[in-house]
Amino acid sequence: MQVIDTVEGWRKTLDTERAAGRTVGLVPTMGALHPGHASLIARASADCDVVGVTVFVNPLQFGANEDLSAYPRSLDADVALAATHGATYLFAPSVATMYPRPMVTAVRVSELSARWEGTSRPTHFEGVATVVTKLFAQAGAVRAYFGEKDYQQLCIVRRLVADLDLPVEVVGCPTVREHDGLALSSRNVYLSPPERAAAPSLHRALCAGAAILVGGGTAAEARVAMGDVLAEINGVPFELAYAEVVDPDSLEPLVGALDVGGTARLLIAARLGRTRLIDNVGVIV
Amino acid sequence: MQVIDTVEGWRKTLDTERAAGRTVGLVPTMGALHPGHASLIARASADCDVVGVTVFVNPLQFGANEDLSAYPRSLDADVALAATHGATYLFAPSVATMYPRPMVTAVRVSELSARWEGTSRPTHFEGVATVVTKLFAQAGAVRAYFGEKDYQQLCIVRRLVADLDLPVEVVGCPTVREHDGLALSSRNVYLSPPERAAAPSLHRALCAGAAILVGGGTAAEARVAMGDVLAEINGVPFELAYAEVVDPDSLEPLVGALDVGGTARLLIAARLGRTRLIDNVGVIV
Repeated sequence: MQVIDTVEGWRKTLDTERAAGRTVGLVPTMGALHPGHASLIARASADCDVVGVTVFVNPLQFGANEDLSAYPRSLDADVALAATHGATYLFAPSVATMYPRPMVTAVRVSELSARWEGTSRPTHFEGVATVVTKLFAQAGAVRAYFGEKDYQQLCIVRRLVADLDLPVEVVGCPTVREHDGLALSSRNVYLSPPERAAAPSLHRALCAGAAILVGGGTAAEARVAMGDVLAEINGVPFELAYAEVVDPDSLEPLVGALDVGGTARLLIAARLGRTRLIDNVGVIV
Repeated sequence: MQVIDTVEGWRKTLDTERAAGRTVGLVPTMGALHPGHASLIARASADCDVVGVTVFVNPLQFGANEDLSAYPRSLDADVALAATHGATYLFAPSVATMYPRPMVTAVRVSELSARWEGTSRPTHFEGVATVVTKLFAQAGAVRAYFGEKDYQQLCIVRRLVADLDLPVEVVGCPTVREHDGLALSSRNVYLSPPERAAAPSLHRALCAGAAILVGGGTAAEARVAMGDVLAEINGVPFELAYAEVVDPDSLEPLVGALDVGGTARLLIAARLGRTRLIDNVGVIV
């Protein structure tokens, strides 16, 4: 696997692969790669002739009070993990390479960006949309693999690709979980042992809500069921941001029960101690 | 020359040309093509193996009270003009093709978009930046030709290409003028005969201001010289929006005289009757 750190080198490498008739899979990451990322890389490797992983901790998507400087960085381990799971190239640009001058151009996906995570992180998704557009522009025509773990991000990326006609096929991939259900996240390393012990309650709550919907219950009943599970968290500072049942495309809250063939997404976000965790599951009735 | 009206057909056509090793020139327009556009097409044709002209009157860049519905449309004449001047393809998508769903993604180039034309047209440049990003994403790697006539637009397009690493080389081309100096514009057809007679005063004012700077005068003196020329307009309703001397990249107002080797851009905007006209000239000392 080859590590590349210039935009020119990266672009030329992928252009050359495409010119030779090979399909390119792209896995954009912020590094600190874990088995969730590994599953994206392995999936891209199964689907595409060559796979490029990008590792860039994007300052634009961190708020002023967020964990940019503390965000875990582990390039050597990332290189090893990406190579093991079938990556052909890893693009690891510096901040100066990505943003050589003050960035005055921004990409915004309104509506989808304002709610849920956008409520507490008002600039987050504009930072995501901007860097993803730039990563796509650098990479050219690719299949791009994103985890469903960051479901709102996945919806936003799908929409910006459609709205701007980017030559990208977005592939959403299932969330990878610990045995107790906790969704893998680079931020899980922040959890203290008691917080780690409580964290699977998020997934249990989502499953309880999903079971209600599958059984013909209403979105309101599903919300109650999620709340009941979360009420059992004791002994760790816990603050629920939202636990919602939404339309899987528009992310607008649903009311009532699902029609036959109907779909929903259950979203949850909470702070455990100082760590904000998010998770989600999908439902088809 | 082939006329194309689907995004897929357009993308495939240009991809095929590039795959065959041919360079692609792109001339994005809103149609109503005049000799100014012809000069862009001819320049692209001289520089590139194939030339694609796009014709799309972009609703996003018109304000609520602007001339979207009245904007001149002349596709048959545009096709003839483009073919005559060397275009290989003309892409003329419908609004439904460009915006098949409500557009929630927007591209913004802050700072550069806020001043000058942005003052009276607060949503204009976001609409321009968004459609240009989309046209570039559809077209792929190209050289793109824009007239200096819309100088602020040219600066914004250059900056968004740089900020987002789009695979585009932006080429600015000189403004084409009538014999009396009036810059060609699709909106000139709106001018009444007395307005048309007064309109060259804009260019005369720019030249008077430029002469001051070239002679070692200050930006303030250049502004006075422009005002003096404009003060001579009589008998037609005339409203000056701005007549300014600015840095050619940041578009910030300059003060004092230019240093040796220094550059400036003189910008002017005015309403003649119901028609808003803009023009500009560059100065190198």
